This record gives sequence, C-alpha cells and structure tokens, in this order.
Amino acid sequence: MTLGGLRVPPRLLMGPGPITVDPRVLQAMGNQLTGQFDPWMTDTMTEVMGLYRTVFQTENEQTFLVDGTSRAGIEAALVSLITPGDRVLVPVFGRFGHLLVEIAERCGAEVHTIEAPWGEVVAPEAVEAAIARIDPALLAIVQGDTSTTMCQPLADIAAIAREHGVLTYCDATASLGGNEFLTDAWGIDVVTAGLQKCLGGPSGSAPITISPRAAELIDARKHVEAGIRSGDEAVDVAPGTRIASNYLDLAQIMDYWGPRRLNHHTEATSMLYAARTCATLLVEEGIEAAVARHALHGGAMLAGVQGLGLTAYGDLEHKMTNVVGVLIPDGLGAGGGDRVRTALLEDFGIEIGTSFGPLHGKVWRIGTMGYNARKDAVLTTLAALEQVLRAEGVAVTAGGGVGAAREIYSEVS
Amino acid sequence: MTLGGLRVPPRLLMGPGPITVDPRVLQAMGNQLTGQFDPWMTDTMTEVMGLYRTVFQTENEQTFLVDGTSRAGIEAALVSLITPGDRVLVPVFGRFGHLLVEIAERCGAEVHTIEAPWGEVVAPEAVEAAIARIDPALLAIVQGDTSTTMCQPLADIAAIAREHGVLTYCDATASLGGNEFLTDAWGIDVVTAGLQKCLGGPSGSAPITISPRAAELIDARKHVEAGIRSGDEAVDVAPGTRIASNYLDLAQIMDYWGPRRLNHHTEATSMLYAARTCATLLVEEGIEAAVARHALHGGAMLAGVQGLGLTAYGDLEHKMTNVVGVLIPDGLGAGGGDRVRTALLEDFGIEIGTSFGPLHGKVWRIGTMGYNARKDAVLTTLAALEQVLRAEGVAVTAGGGVGAAREIYSEVS
Repeated sequence: MTLGGLRVPPRLLMGPGPITVDPRVLQAMGNQLTGQFDPWMTDTMTEVMGLYRTVFQTENEQTFLVDGTSRAGIEAALVSLITPGDRVLVPVFGRFGHLLVEIAERCGAEVHTIEAPWGEVVAPEAVEAAIARIDPALLAIVQGDTSTTMCQPLADIAAIAREHGVLTYCDATASLGGNEFLTDAWGIDVVTAGLQKCLGGPSGSAPITISPRAAELIDARKHVEAGIRSGDEAVDVAPGTRIASNYLDLAQIMDYWGPRRLNHHTEATSMLYAARTCATLLVEEGIEAAVARHALHGGAMLAGVQGLGLTAYGDLEHKMTNVVGVLIPDGLGAGGGDRVRTALLEDFGIEIGTSFGPLHGKVWRIGTMGYNARKDAVLTTLAALEQVLRAEGVAVTAGGGVGAAREIYSEVS
Repeated sequence: MTLGGLRVPPRLLMGPGPITVDPRVLQAMGNQLTGQFDPWMTDTMTEVMGLYRTVFQTENEQTFLVDGTSRAGIEAALVSLITPGDRVLVPVFGRFGHLLVEIAERCGAEVHTIEAPWGEVVAPEAVEAAIARIDPALLAIVQGDTSTTMCQPLADIAAIAREHGVLTYCDATASLGGNEFLTDAWGIDVVTAGLQKCLGGPSGSAPITISPRAAELIDARKHVEAGIRSGDEAVDVAPGTRIASNYLDLAQIMDYWGPRRLNHHTEATSMLYAARTCATLLVEEGIEAAVARHALHGGAMLAGVQGLGLTAYGDLEHKMTNVVGVLIPDGLGAGGGDRVRTALLEDFGIEIGTSFGPLHGKVWRIGTMGYNARKDAVLTTLAALEQVLRAEGVAVTAGGGVGAAREIYSEVS
C-alpha cells in the first residue's frame, strides 16, 4: 500500500492567524532531535528562556515554553494561579475574554466580568471600580483580541491592579511581537503567547513568563508526582492546594526548565526549535522595529481597504497593528461574505478571516502579521480583493486599495 | 545583533525515547501551513483520523490527535472520562502507572491501585479481584512501561473489565506500533499514544481513539464555551458535570475534529503533518510487519547485550519489543553507569537511557524503536558499548555483542 506524501496547496494566509510561517522557522523544524537531557538540549532550553525574556521585555527567571497551543499556555497560567474559590475579574471585550472566563470557571474560580461593547476597549476606571467592588485575587485580561481587532491598553490597568494587590495575567497570544508589550515596566505577573501570530511560527508552543511573586505563589502549591520524587517531602510537596492539572502544572514545569531538570513531559523538541527561531528572528530585528513593521503594514492594509471604499470595523484608535476588521458591504447580499473569501482562496490562494459571534457574516478580518507583515503580501491581497469584489458587483475604486497602501509606504521610504 | 542558527549535534538516540526521528517525518514538517478551516486542511484532518484507525486497529469514529505531548493525551482521556468522586483502578508496574494515579487524583478520582513488583506485569486474576472489591468506574492501565521495560498483556484484563461493565483506558505511548495493540478486538475504550517512540516522530502530538460508549459518556458532559455557542442550549450544554479542563476537553475536541468543525484550539499543523507521516509510514509498512521489525531488532539488541556478558533486567517473557533494561555491571563502581553513558554520547554520539526510582543507577535502558529499529543502529550501538565497557575495565567478550546480534539476523535472512 502506498499513500501519497503531503501536497499542501499554496496559500498566503492573511487572516487573523495562523499565518504563513517564516521559511526559516520551517527549516529549523527539520533539524534532528537530541535526547531530552542531552547537555546541548538543556543548554538550548536555557538559551530559549533568555530569548523569550527579551521578547516579553522582562527579567523574569521563569520564562519558558508550555508544550501545546496558545490555549494550553492560557490554561497553564490560570490553573496554576487560581485556587478553587478564588475570585477572578475578567474584563471582556471579545471572544477571547469569554475564553478566559470559561477556563477560569473550569479552574473553580468565582468569575466576575465587566464587558465593553464589541469594537471598543475597557476603561481603566471601570476596572478600578470592579476591583474595589469584587476584591479579586486575580485580574485576567486579553491584550489583543482578534475577534474584535481591539488592543487593550494595559499600563494603567496593571498599575491599578498592583496598587490593590491583585495579581495580573495577560493573554498576549495575538499581539506579542507586533504591538508594544512591556511585561516588567507595566508590572504584569504572568503573560502567555503563541507562535502563530506576530512571531511568524506554527501553532503548538506557548511562551510564558512568570513574575517572582507569581512563581512563589505557584511553588507554594508544588506536588511533585510520585515516581520521580526526591525522597525529601519538604522539597517535593508544598502545603498549598495541589494544582488540578498535571500536564499544565507550572510548579513542576518550572522545575523541568530550571536547574533541577525534573522530568515532566517529553519536550516537543521540534516545536522548541520553531519557538527558538521565532524569538531569534524577532530579537535580531529588534522588538521595537518589529512593532513598527507591524504598524506600517497594518496601517497600509487599513488605508488600502478604506481606499477600496470599504469601512474598517471598531475603534480605530485602539486597533491592533496586525489585524483589521472590514465591514462586509451590504451590496454583496446573503452569503456574499463567504463567496468573497472562497473566491480569494480558490482563485488567488489568499485566505482572509471570517468572524465569530455577533460579527459573523458582518465582518471580515484581514491580518498582516509575522512573516506576512510585508509590502508584497499587503499589495497582493488588496489587488486580489479588488478583483473579487468587482466580480461580485461591488462598486470599488479601481486601484484604490493598492494606491492608498502605496501612499502609506511612500511616506516612510 | 545576529544570533546563530541551530547547530544540533549528531546523535543516534538509542534510549527509551524520544528517538531519532524518521527523516521523512522531519521533511513533512517543513511544509507550509494552510488555514485551520481550509478545505484541504479539514480533508487532511479527516484523512489523519482514518490513518490512526488503522494504527489503533479500530473502527472508532472518534480517533484523532490531541495537541500536546503524550502526557497531554493521557490527561485529556482521564479528565474527560473521570467525574470527580469516581472510583478508578490503576494497576501499577512502573513509573507510568504512578503517573496515571497522579493524573487521576488531580481529576478528583478516588484512586485504588494494585502493584506488581518492578520488572513484572500484573496478573489478570489480581485485576479481577480488585474490580470485584472496588467496583471502579474506570480501569486505567499502561501497556508498555519503559521504566521497567514490561509490556502488560491486555486481552484478558480488558475482557474482565468489560464483563464487569468497567470502562478501560490504556496508555500505549511507548508500545504502539512496536507491540501488538488491538483496540477493538480487546475491547479497550480509550487509548492514547505519542509519536516519539515506535512511531518514529517527535514528541508533541498525542493520537487518541475513543469507543462509542466512551464518546457518549464524554458527550454527556459537553459544555461548549461561551463565545462560540450555536444559540441552541440543547446542542451546546449537556447535563453532565462540566469537564475540568478546556484545553483537554474531549467533548469539544470531538466537535472540532467532527463534522461540526467547532472552533477550539488552533491546530498545531506542523505536528499534524508529523503525525500524518508517522501513520502513513506505519500503514505502508503494515502494522504487523512493524511489530515484527521491532521484535527482530529488539531481539537482536537483547542477544547482543547478553553476548557482551551483560544481564538483561526483568521478566523477559513480558519485555516490550522496543526497549531492554541492562543491569549496570558491578565492576564499574560508583557513578560508572553515568560514565558509560557519557562516553557513549561524547565519543560515539550515541544516547542510551538511565532509569527512574528504584532502578536509578542500577539499570541502563536501550531502545530499538521507530526509525532506529534497524540493523545498523543495533550493531553500531553494541560495537560502541563494547569499546566503552572495555575502556572502563569491564570484562566483555570481544565481538560478543555484535556477534550475538548477527546470529539473530542470520536466522531471518
């Protein structure tokens, strides 16, 4: 029996993620493995910790990878930080806020929310009032929520939380590397991310950073699993409530990445190679330069869709650099949004995104992130979108998208 | 700032896993991504489900991948099957039995164990007596425990569980593809694995199969997360206890892989490519042929270490095909076991394994699995081991290891 090899169709992934992976990351994954505790491997793990300290803009010793998708990182943070019964405050301004609520509930938290209308961000005053009212143990918040394209300002909110002695967790999956994120300067305790957005990698590894005070709280719940205990109860079992997950138990995972090198999972080494390369590329470029690049190409895409006569969704003052929501024109009629996406995919090999929940059928989402925060990717997408819209009978300005984007580029060249 | 590329040292990984990845799997991971719901991607996911039905020897519709290491697969199974308070029976015959206990406890189970001495397997009669005494909801058991090299016979035990109406879960991570595993013929409800052993891939994706009755039980606990609900409560929220993990919630993951294509995590597509290729290679070879190959090369390695004058560990009647425990010779003295491993690694680029718990410092573990279940890998390892032992002053039969292995090969050629 002979089964065929993979025949992956060529795609330019201009949706809200995952996006086209930087070829240098794909090449890195082609490297052979070493053993889990090979000195080269543990040195490489230590190197990766350092690289992600730069990416997260932090001095946190506890900075490493969780072996799973960005969602695994979120759950690792929440299940390790939340003791059942804890009050948790989640400001919700899109789908991924709901996800934090969902996961925190499953961790046994008493979850309180404040909600901003979709397309807006949350005001610091609303967070302060809620903290005063609820007295939560943890504030959990998303930075960039691709479902609405909003980028939540965090400096003020984090300062408020810190004043009130509230721990903070932030999901920076969709924003990190393409929008400013200052873990230490803002004083955020735990941050998680993924590779498949601005970092230009594939999904499957979740970088995380943990402040000393959060690490101490997590360590106070450490229960090393039977079968690999040291024999010294004081070293292996802390008095705090055992974390409800083994796989996502950050107390054990810190000991796995740390000098103790405690056996836990078998490292997903190919994903570690990918994560290392994503960070290397970002550090070589410079974090500020990468953010500026996302701002440039995201700005060009925004100008381009407006230049085609389309309307961008949401509060543009708070838009993420790396994704834009575009109102689906009324003229397309029923199912027109999906017809346009299908035509872009089938005729041009370009993927743009649909939307969730209240925006489904009303908004496309177009990303410019990671490897695809590039001029040719932006112009090609706008050129193809113009053709597809015209074929669907939508009145578009001929050359208006590409022209408007070119103007943005000409301003910086 | 310029950081170097990866410079992975050349290694022949002859430990208990992870092992050297088949180059065809590495090549597959070099493919570019498509979108998560690209028709090609969903077709490929469906194809992967079919391939793993063959690997698991099952007709189970619910056969797919969990995005994480093999440990993520174990926890997904247990957290989705166990309702807090359930009685769970775990026969323990090595470290990975302890891991099942650990995870089941964190899932809120009342865990009962029966233990076999390390180096032996569990008798069906002992399981039957424990089931009669405890009346568990679930029997959770390991097939191949690399910590002791034992391969637990499962046919009788699974039949007993079924007679008593007890659900069965099996961790086949270390054995699948190299030792017979008949999910349907044996009647095991849920089985999980990993790629990094006999399947010849990297860690980071966990194949799983779920029987119809187990899937029904899991579905009865479905709580689709807010933000992506259909609006029809009856479709989204079942009356059973919500599963304590979101990331590892098999009820939602079944809807993600199934016709509903419910959004959940962002698929770790590079790992899916790896998993697909691992399965393709195995299906092309034929499952029975792959098991026979592991038996041949594992047998040659066993004969080889014995031919060097070393003693194999444990009940050889129940040894896994793909790993052998070797008693560290007394003559080596303190730390000698580690000196030999270091010399093999540094001088020959060959990794063999140390051991956990009661066997630490007493037993090496040498694997012959996946891509490394090959004659040249076996003979090279034996030749190098002979040289290293001689240099350490251990009395070894010159050429005895390679010679004994050659005899095994000559019997089949």
